[in-house]
Amino acid sequence: MDGLMFSQRVTRLRSSLVREILAAAQRPGAISFAGGLPAPDVFPPFDWPSVPKSAAQYGMSEGEPELREAIADYVSAQGLKCSASQVLIVSGSQQSIDLVAKLFVDPGTPLITESPTYLAALQAFELFGARITGVPLGESGICGDALRATIRATRPRLAYLIPTFQNPAGTCYTDQARREVAAVLDESGTPLLEDDPYRELTFGDADRTPICAHLKDVPWIYQGSLSKSFMPGVRVGYLVASDDLFPHLLRLKQAADLHTNRPGQWLAHSWLVSADRDSYIGELRERYRAKRDAMNSALAGHFGDLATWDVPQGGLFFWLKLNEPRDTNPVLARTLARNVAFMPGEAFFPSDARVSGYLRMNFSHANPQQMDEGLGIIAEELAGR
Amino acid sequence: MDGLMFSQRVTRLRSSLVREILAAAQRPGAISFAGGLPAPDVFPPFDWPSVPKSAAQYGMSEGEPELREAIADYVSAQGLKCSASQVLIVSGSQQSIDLVAKLFVDPGTPLITESPTYLAALQAFELFGARITGVPLGESGICGDALRATIRATRPRLAYLIPTFQNPAGTCYTDQARREVAAVLDESGTPLLEDDPYRELTFGDADRTPICAHLKDVPWIYQGSLSKSFMPGVRVGYLVASDDLFPHLLRLKQAADLHTNRPGQWLAHSWLVSADRDSYIGELRERYRAKRDAMNSALAGHFGDLATWDVPQGGLFFWLKLNEPRDTNPVLARTLARNVAFMPGEAFFPSDARVSGYLRMNFSHANPQQMDEGLGIIAEELAGR
Repeated sequence: MDGLMFSQRVTRLRSSLVREILAAAQRPGAISFAGGLPAPDVFPPFDWPSVPKSAAQYGMSEGEPELREAIADYVSAQGLKCSASQVLIVSGSQQSIDLVAKLFVDPGTPLITESPTYLAALQAFELFGARITGVPLGESGICGDALRATIRATRPRLAYLIPTFQNPAGTCYTDQARREVAAVLDESGTPLLEDDPYRELTFGDADRTPICAHLKDVPWIYQGSLSKSFMPGVRVGYLVASDDLFPHLLRLKQAADLHTNRPGQWLAHSWLVSADRDSYIGELRERYRAKRDAMNSALAGHFGDLATWDVPQGGLFFWLKLNEPRDTNPVLARTLARNVAFMPGEAFFPSDARVSGYLRMNFSHANPQQMDEGLGIIAEELAGR
Repeated sequence: MDGLMFSQRVTRLRSSLVREILAAAQRPGAISFAGGLPAPDVFPPFDWPSVPKSAAQYGMSEGEPELREAIADYVSAQGLKCSASQVLIVSGSQQSIDLVAKLFVDPGTPLITESPTYLAALQAFELFGARITGVPLGESGICGDALRATIRATRPRLAYLIPTFQNPAGTCYTDQARREVAAVLDESGTPLLEDDPYRELTFGDADRTPICAHLKDVPWIYQGSLSKSFMPGVRVGYLVASDDLFPHLLRLKQAADLHTNRPGQWLAHSWLVSADRDSYIGELRERYRAKRDAMNSALAGHFGDLATWDVPQGGLFFWLKLNEPRDTNPVLARTLARNVAFMPGEAFFPSDARVSGYLRMNFSHANPQQMDEGLGIIAEELAGR
């Protein structure tokens, strides 16, 4: 078939690296550090009795009113005061990115992100034709002056940031960085999409106040996920938006899939309002902290001479910087042949500013024995042995 | 906020007529002929034990392998031979339209549809900038010669058709029309998106072989729904695509929402492979046939002097043609004030070829008493009494 019969947009579909890696990671016996998969045994049981019979019928595009209320309470408790009327339930937070891209992005529209940033967000924005400029991510977040300079140079229509346990770098912005970034966005009139999927997976007492809570003037969207703290298979996420953006996002949601599945919304609601939620999350943090520590030990054993890394204070990933930078994609090809997957760092940088020499390593899915074995194999292939 | 900060696409978001009407229809005591809602008491019970614990985890973008197999069998039995590898599970068939629009439509891309056609498809295609030309729909479908002439004149990138119990007109293409349309699409190299949500709701023995089954050369997508025969609240639909289109649609699905909710997929699978499915559908047809007949009687009582209509042989709608054509939107405003909703026909025509003087009336949701009362109110307002 003639390629010209497709939309221009299709030429911008990035290679399906993620899907291929995730598929490889599902092979029997595979060891995967690639995805952001929760451990297979952490999920709470499905609370089926909480799902009313009426959930079989069509629902509202906004989401179930009870769930919207619960999310508004949950987000408000994090410091971002909002009402249920600002909450849109979505089919997982990847859908938020699709809706926001539809709202803001034409071919050539300038956006800014952190560099590196979440690769599926890059894919979604680039699909619609965004020209993405990255602001370098430091230890305490992005720097206000660098942000201001990039905004002046590129006049972005939107900033996309992941300030809390950033993906892939694991960085958690300091309180000062959060306030500084909010002030620069306000002064420059740059709307913000804040992505916050990992906030519940904290192993310390880092400030996690949403940047959106510090904004005074500009339009904003704050998107959260239940995939990391509750369960991903139900595909229920949410966004909260300033009043000027909400009606547009609602109509885009309706055009995308009418509404989010209702049984999943009821399960999410039941979990959110459950008296056991806090203790469940407390246990989850302990389990993931132990996994992080096990991974750190295994990394020290196999990568001590090859790379450096910070120990993440939350989230699901280690971000390794190789002592001798190189393209890690050929290494992945070799480790996949030995049934071990990781995520090459290259995919996390905007297309026109690829950086080599990083690896993203998930620590939530593999068990300690797999960590030792899998990291050993990756280190071997990296060292060319 | 400055409107120029949004994408061009947002200026093409149609008014949220449907959402407003559906919202009005959910008020207590409202009588609605507006939506395509199944009757509230027809749904099978949720088969929760069929959902495995593993459905809490992330799944594959393609969908659950077992469900893809079951859908391939189900669609093949309808005459469209296909394999599970061609089946993509989506979050309701509205999502198929979004994915197909992303695949084919740039601003200005010519498409053809029937005239009238499904209003939410118009919305989705127009959102991406399609220029839609309608081919007039007759009693036995669209006419091959008219289709050929429109294709020659507009060179469309895609045809979107609903040949079986068309929405809104209720038309079911004859076998001859199906073959003729397929031949014209093949000879002109025009890909087809065939939308087939109502096929199970048949009250006679009309031929329902998918047009896609008659195609020999051109790329095609066949999309089906479980919302009308099983339940809409789980938001599980499917598409089947020719091999040249499938990989693109899969990547677009991944970028849109990663994958469809897994508990819903397992419920759908359980129902599809259930030994009770045929008898359930048989009962559903009888119930909807009785509702159709009740609606026809109520229409005869109230609209006999105002409009003409065909008795639909399947689907969920009557399509009324007023004897004296007029804009029905002001009528709707008045009936909504009296808590009665219907769908003005204008919304079902492409933007640049609006036709007035039609009403779409759903018969599956209201009970006979509501039909009598509600149609009486609409007739009164139409007659200006």
